[in-house]
Amino acid sequence: MDCIFCDIVNRKGEAEILFENDLVMAFLDIRPVNYGHTLVIPKKHFTNFLELPPEYLEELGKVTQLISGAIQAGLKADGFNVIINNGAAAGQTVYHFHFHIIPRFSSDFNYRPKFKVYADGSMKEFAEIIRNAVTKKG
Amino acid sequence: MDCIFCDIVNRKGEAEILFENDLVMAFLDIRPVNYGHTLVIPKKHFTNFLELPPEYLEELGKVTQLISGAIQAGLKADGFNVIINNGAAAGQTVYHFHFHIIPRFSSDFNYRPKFKVYADGSMKEFAEIIRNAVTKKG
Repeated sequence: MDCIFCDIVNRKGEAEILFENDLVMAFLDIRPVNYGHTLVIPKKHFTNFLELPPEYLEELGKVTQLISGAIQAGLKADGFNVIINNGAAAGQTVYHFHFHIIPRFSSDFNYRPKFKVYADGSMKEFAEIIRNAVTKKG
Repeated sequence: MDCIFCDIVNRKGEAEILFENDLVMAFLDIRPVNYGHTLVIPKKHFTNFLELPPEYLEELGKVTQLISGAIQAGLKADGFNVIINNGAAAGQTVYHFHFHIIPRFSSDFNYRPKFKVYADGSMKEFAEIIRNAVTKKG
């Protein structure tokens, strides 16, 4: 299976690797939203967030926290975003799971999403649908 | 200390709660980017991602995965984003740590960020700065 992130893990593809341990690797995104934009991935191939087994999920969380702190301190950033794009509709373009870490500066364009408003009673309906789905999975 | 999320945890503030266990709670964001937009928080007050101790980080990861899957299945979403806004420069507005989970649909406006390009050699410099900062923290 062709996967550019597996190639980086296997040293068949080049990357500026920032960190690596048995389970997880972090490297610079070659298409950065801001300089220092980093990806944190499991070294084993999982397509998306929902596929991650507990040991990878835990280690990805720890390493993402470590690298976020290092990016903020090292680049003197004012903040950072951590983002998962899960599925094409959410902007996923590489189907090997990855966290994005994007350093942010007070001088950045301040992107604000457009918020929706729940129609009367509909918030409760959405909550009920999700609670039922949690019960099936939990 | 006034904190609207601590109020929700302590049942002093209203929310459509989707899930709760000893450490973590999930409820609907009242200002949704899409209907079903959910926040997952530690029940103990931590300002941001970098402050989370390992047991909270681990549990937040697990519950965020569980609820993401439930949102996608329950709302028949095509995907979802999981987002941390850490610091005002990254869009944080409530200073009690939270993951956003935003359901996404193929019909959504497809937001694409503007990408930067590393000047020759500068990618290596950024990597070096971050690697040094990781070494100090790791």
